[in-house]
Amino acid sequence: MPRRTNTRERLIETAADLFLRQGYAHTGVNEIMQRAQTTSGSFYHFFPTKEDLVLAVVDHIGESLDTGVFSADLAAVTDPVERVFGVVDSYRRHLADNDFTLGSPLGTLAAELSDSHPQVRERLAALFTRWIDHMEVLLEDAGNRLPGDLDRRALADFILSAVEGAAVQARARRSLAPFDATAAGLRRHLGALASTPKAAAAPETRPRPAPASRSSRADWRAW
Amino acid sequence: MPRRTNTRERLIETAADLFLRQGYAHTGVNEIMQRAQTTSGSFYHFFPTKEDLVLAVVDHIGESLDTGVFSADLAAVTDPVERVFGVVDSYRRHLADNDFTLGSPLGTLAAELSDSHPQVRERLAALFTRWIDHMEVLLEDAGNRLPGDLDRRALADFILSAVEGAAVQARARRSLAPFDATAAGLRRHLGALASTPKAAAAPETRPRPAPASRSSRADWRAW
Repeated sequence: MPRRTNTRERLIETAADLFLRQGYAHTGVNEIMQRAQTTSGSFYHFFPTKEDLVLAVVDHIGESLDTGVFSADLAAVTDPVERVFGVVDSYRRHLADNDFTLGSPLGTLAAELSDSHPQVRERLAALFTRWIDHMEVLLEDAGNRLPGDLDRRALADFILSAVEGAAVQARARRSLAPFDATAAGLRRHLGALASTPKAAAAPETRPRPAPASRSSRADWRAW
Repeated sequence: MPRRTNTRERLIETAADLFLRQGYAHTGVNEIMQRAQTTSGSFYHFFPTKEDLVLAVVDHIGESLDTGVFSADLAAVTDPVERVFGVVDSYRRHLADNDFTLGSPLGTLAAELSDSHPQVRERLAALFTRWIDHMEVLLEDAGNRLPGDLDRRALADFILSAVEGAAVQARARRSLAPFDATAAGLRRHLGALASTPKAAAAPETRPRPAPASRSSRADWRAW
């Protein structure tokens, strides 16, 4: 159930849930209005077209990335390498908590709308880039735990690809196994990078076990 | 343009192209009949429902995996590790040749239909598993180029996740850069696995540059 009383936000959260669960084209405006308990006058006041609504949904996802996945969700994780896996783990929780009915917000919308809705695609592309910006910062924070000449941005691209694809696989297979295999692959990958000869000597070159990061799951769960 | 004259196959190929380009829910039966130049009597003879058609599309994708991506496309590649990257490269060509209008067939349908169409989801899940079966064979063929105790099936899961996510990113960003960064990450990953102490000594531990594998692109292009 939507938690906020603001009509515009309620419409966005309701639409986000339906679009990500059952698809954008599969979701009618009437269904959204009914679930959000609002009138058509109110709906069209805020969103003259359904595309205006999905653009607002994409912006909402962006805010959740900034304040949730890459911020509140990581608040309890101090180890810089474990912060990377804190992000990976937020995808895993999102899949498990919703019983695989929801995949990655970015990837799900991108797969359906990239060709048919150019404006949505452009905004999603900007969000993928923002995700990578955030991840690059985490990888920079890892300092000499990773080789100095490592292209951290390319590594962020690789990590994003892996978690997005793992979410698609896990959702279709209704199993966390492919997700966990992917996360283990990423952990092994970062471990191997950390132990390459070019990595500066550091007190520890292997990631420690992840502390639980359950501080704020609200932003993900709202989707 | 469909190449075959068989009406059923023409309907499947036309539907596959439209579903993958613009989405399943976004594509009407009338549009498919019109593009495939067939009558509604003919359409409903073969496919009583639109869901029957998408199930046939999924089976068609499975055949293309078996005979194209993991067979004909790899015919010119002899090096066992390069055969893995031959599969990765087939995704890249698919994106580039279609100017990013088409993503991964499996991932695109899974993202849209996993929750709303349980029967489609089950069949897609089986295809993801078949993809992994095929990849596991390639990784087994790599023999002592990879550590003997390596979980090849988990590695296949990781590779599938990475290429599926890379395809989503590349399509949304209309750029091969994220795909190439992901492929480079996978190459580095396999290189690191090959040079771990547990890998048996082999004449070469680094993959050679990939020979071009342009032998049979028909199956991918038909999508």
